[in-house]
Amino acid sequence: MTYCCGILVRDGLVMIADTRTNAGLDNVSTFRKLHVFEKKGRHAFSIASAGNLSVTQNVLHLVHTGLENPITKKSERLEDMTDMFAAAQLIGRAVNKVEKNYAEAFEQANLKFEICFLFGGQIKGAGPRLFMIYAAGNFIECTPDAPFLQIGEHKYGKPILDRAVNYDTDLYDALKIGLISMDSTIKSNLGVGLPIDIAITRSGALEYETKHRIDASDTYFRDLRERWSAALRSAHMGIPRPQYGEEK
Amino acid sequence: MTYCCGILVRDGLVMIADTRTNAGLDNVSTFRKLHVFEKKGRHAFSIASAGNLSVTQNVLHLVHTGLENPITKKSERLEDMTDMFAAAQLIGRAVNKVEKNYAEAFEQANLKFEICFLFGGQIKGAGPRLFMIYAAGNFIECTPDAPFLQIGEHKYGKPILDRAVNYDTDLYDALKIGLISMDSTIKSNLGVGLPIDIAITRSGALEYETKHRIDASDTYFRDLRERWSAALRSAHMGIPRPQYGEEK
Repeated sequence: MTYCCGILVRDGLVMIADTRTNAGLDNVSTFRKLHVFEKKGRHAFSIASAGNLSVTQNVLHLVHTGLENPITKKSERLEDMTDMFAAAQLIGRAVNKVEKNYAEAFEQANLKFEICFLFGGQIKGAGPRLFMIYAAGNFIECTPDAPFLQIGEHKYGKPILDRAVNYDTDLYDALKIGLISMDSTIKSNLGVGLPIDIAITRSGALEYETKHRIDASDTYFRDLRERWSAALRSAHMGIPRPQYGEEK
Repeated sequence: MTYCCGILVRDGLVMIADTRTNAGLDNVSTFRKLHVFEKKGRHAFSIASAGNLSVTQNVLHLVHTGLENPITKKSERLEDMTDMFAAAQLIGRAVNKVEKNYAEAFEQANLKFEICFLFGGQIKGAGPRLFMIYAAGNFIECTPDAPFLQIGEHKYGKPILDRAVNYDTDLYDALKIGLISMDSTIKSNLGVGLPIDIAITRSGALEYETKHRIDASDTYFRDLRERWSAALRSAHMGIPRPQYGEEK
């Protein structure tokens, strides 16, 4: 299982991903799912992936080594793209190509082609954007009305994002809320676990100002988990008990 | 969609269910999913259902009109059962019978036989018990280690139950936490909505001390939603911002 979320606020982009992969409960491992590609002053990309690891790694390989553009017939690489939308299209085409390569074999092996990507970042000349790319290569873009996108095990961590994040949220408050969302997911699904990778790029800065791996010894994240638990406890204890019994 | 949860604490049993049904977004309606059957001093049962409404109503019909016991060959009704485990078995057999009746037609119509029940309550001579009955008629029983069971859209409302409920939780605190869990679900899934039905039976009392429908005008539930939102806001605002940026 996997949980990744991207939060796009006015100040910039936050990307968060766990690292746990499992093929059955007895085959659990740690793989990076958040990949950061930057060329300072030109672009700052990040890709988070969920689903079959062989497929997502194949897609990443293709977008780096190059893929033919069906119109220009020229080979394109992610690092050559000059706008984020075209870059999302490139990733979509890479997904389609990998799907075509393996469709028959996957069907024979009774495997489903289930993958999903978050693609975020910025290229010189425009602010940060965030996309979610589906298994069919199609994609949607994040907008200020709902300034986050999630992939993988997204439900446990959605309520806090729904309530607490808006487009004007401070960049590091967005990271904090994203980490609370990750904490709720880790607590409810064993398939999502530490370490957590985070990456933050500020609007207009063509680089990542934060790239960090949070592991079990991380003091801030441990403190956040304890504070959040204690706050939830006092939050529900502060609400009076229902009196419905007396209205019978 | 549906969300129901049952919470079994030392003091008794809480059952909570929403009432929204939808066959597509343009066919939304209100149907009772929490059914309470009591014979004061003898038994106090409740059944919450998720999934195809025609199937769940059919199952309820069968357990009330009677179903042949495969061993004794006698017809059994829910209200005649003398222990909760046997009553759960009866519901399971009713599920199997409905499945056999409709399996072929469902397959032709490309419908899935997806249903699930929570069955809780108590019968004279023993304390309250809580079961979850699956589409194959098999079932599991709730135990003090994880004193709640959920059916339907269960993920959004699970984190608060995971954190806040244990077997020694006060009965009306359990109801309160269940209502917070319902609130989180309503906020994140349009397919779950008011009114909410609740039923509470206290350990040893062979009746429901609370049976109530919470609608949009309910003062307590509105206050709970507002307090919970405000408490969550101040909870995450009270946690310091992460400083990872400086550690780069």
